[in-house]
Amino acid sequence: MRATLMYGAGDVRVEEVPDARLIEPTDALVKVSRAAICGSDLWPYRDMEPAESGRPMGHEAIGVVDAVGAEVRMIKPGDVVAMPFAFSDGTCEFCREGLYTACVHGGFFGSFDGGGGQAEAVRIPQADGTLYVLPGGVDEASMPSLLTLTDVMGTGHHAARAAGVCPGATVAVVGDGAVGLCGVIAARRLGAEQILILGRHPARLALALEFGATDAVTERGGEAVERVKELTGGHGAHSVLECVGLEASLLTSIEIARPGGAVGRVGVPQSDTLVGSQPAFYANLTISGGPAPVRGYFDELLPDVLEGRIEPGRVFDLAVDLDGVPDGYRAMSDRTAIKVMVEP
Amino acid sequence: MRATLMYGAGDVRVEEVPDARLIEPTDALVKVSRAAICGSDLWPYRDMEPAESGRPMGHEAIGVVDAVGAEVRMIKPGDVVAMPFAFSDGTCEFCREGLYTACVHGGFFGSFDGGGGQAEAVRIPQADGTLYVLPGGVDEASMPSLLTLTDVMGTGHHAARAAGVCPGATVAVVGDGAVGLCGVIAARRLGAEQILILGRHPARLALALEFGATDAVTERGGEAVERVKELTGGHGAHSVLECVGLEASLLTSIEIARPGGAVGRVGVPQSDTLVGSQPAFYANLTISGGPAPVRGYFDELLPDVLEGRIEPGRVFDLAVDLDGVPDGYRAMSDRTAIKVMVEP
Repeated sequence: MRATLMYGAGDVRVEEVPDARLIEPTDALVKVSRAAICGSDLWPYRDMEPAESGRPMGHEAIGVVDAVGAEVRMIKPGDVVAMPFAFSDGTCEFCREGLYTACVHGGFFGSFDGGGGQAEAVRIPQADGTLYVLPGGVDEASMPSLLTLTDVMGTGHHAARAAGVCPGATVAVVGDGAVGLCGVIAARRLGAEQILILGRHPARLALALEFGATDAVTERGGEAVERVKELTGGHGAHSVLECVGLEASLLTSIEIARPGGAVGRVGVPQSDTLVGSQPAFYANLTISGGPAPVRGYFDELLPDVLEGRIEPGRVFDLAVDLDGVPDGYRAMSDRTAIKVMVEP
Repeated sequence: MRATLMYGAGDVRVEEVPDARLIEPTDALVKVSRAAICGSDLWPYRDMEPAESGRPMGHEAIGVVDAVGAEVRMIKPGDVVAMPFAFSDGTCEFCREGLYTACVHGGFFGSFDGGGGQAEAVRIPQADGTLYVLPGGVDEASMPSLLTLTDVMGTGHHAARAAGVCPGATVAVVGDGAVGLCGVIAARRLGAEQILILGRHPARLALALEFGATDAVTERGGEAVERVKELTGGHGAHSVLECVGLEASLLTSIEIARPGGAVGRVGVPQSDTLVGSQPAFYANLTISGGPAPVRGYFDELLPDVLEGRIEPGRVFDLAVDLDGVPDGYRAMSDRTAIKVMVEP
């Protein structure tokens, strides 16, 4: 079959690889109908050391179940399923608490231990716990939005939850990538009254405003902090959604949070150091978040997608086939596309 | 009057100073009957640059109101009052939310802007919002425990709240100083099932066990992390109370927290850098806390003190008069005393 492998920074190849197959009795095999390129795929695209063997890419997919292992009970061939970016058994103590991304038998797709979704097919470990079976009869127009539930929409929702967004809240979203845009949808959905989006890309900011953002802040650093305080009555936002992962954006997030407020962070941290420990302390901020347990958010978010109340699929502004995947990476890296859908 | 001033590291003097007096119409003047030396006073005691004018010290006190300004409505001369370590107007948007330490008209005692409690008398800004009037007829034996409500017990409680301690939880308390010991009391009071205390001082650990700790962990760094995981079934503590403030102790706190758990930090951070941003992220930890709004915790904690259910006053193991204050600092710095009460 054909699959996407990354061999180093800027070096994405679509190659013929051995067919994905069942290995464990808890596996399923899924034929991918739609996958995506993620903002987090851009980190290795920028700095991955050249490697002999390629890293399988892609951790968001919708597809059709082709086969299941002997111990799979809930999933059956023919099911149309969504594959969250992490796999999880669904039964361990963390899964039972809803923290699927801490599953003791879990892991991440698009890495050396899991397979990749930017491929014709993918092996799904812990299929019963991992896959979400989509209801029958879903129309094609909803598919892009459903695909976002496998990562970016669930992640934006996680940021909003971690930041304690509640009705009437003032929210700031740091980052205008697909996750930030979904964070705007999530904040609006949870009843935020004022939603500031911090970013610099006119097309993305325009989409954010359509999704429910009330103000766009294009300044950076100290000027952004001043602007947010001006817009929020002087004290900052109750809830800040950090959707970038750079040290500077986390510091900005801390600085624009209102005393007693919270920063929900979902941007994969590019540094182990967090600057701003002291202002965060003196303002009694809560810093929370991490890899979103998106598997647990399907039940909550799916009806809103199916009934058209939210349209996170609008973050996809480019679609490619497998051959087009390297171009898709380039487009996202060059910021000419917000998010790329892959149709193998 | 006589008051304690710090002129530099290790240089604490008790001197004759101009009498404390009313300045603003919202002030009260309190004659101090009991004050305390705080673990956080030891930070400047170790590293304060030599200064021409001394810094007034002391931010915990109980005393009797001597006079009030023209706009003071709730407090009257003769009231026996407790002075929280921060002053606050009690009416701003943050005070109304219970975050008294973010009061827009607030500040901290024991600093150049507020007066100091290690003195014969102290001026109380925003008296109506700041002071807590103690009920009449309190016996002397309860006074040390009531004094802890002005800082260390309220702070331990804040750490426990910030760390989300709930019935049945596994809790780790990092630091066996007075705040850590009060954190043990708070965790027990909120229903924690297992309470680990991390520290190295046998007398303090013994007191922690009397206060309700179930296990003492005397290892440090990676060994402490291993030991906590062993004691908690492999995954760490749901709630970690960081009661030190060093970068290393905050990192340990992150490393011993269970995925999805929380670190409540009340140790004044000695570094603006927090290392451990990545493990905190991948474990979906919540890091919360800051200066405790102790003014807001009196109503909840006072009955437990008056009815003898908690005895945080046992953290005081040395009492001095004003002349003895420099010796008190030395004793706390040398770790021969846990916490020192000052009886002017």
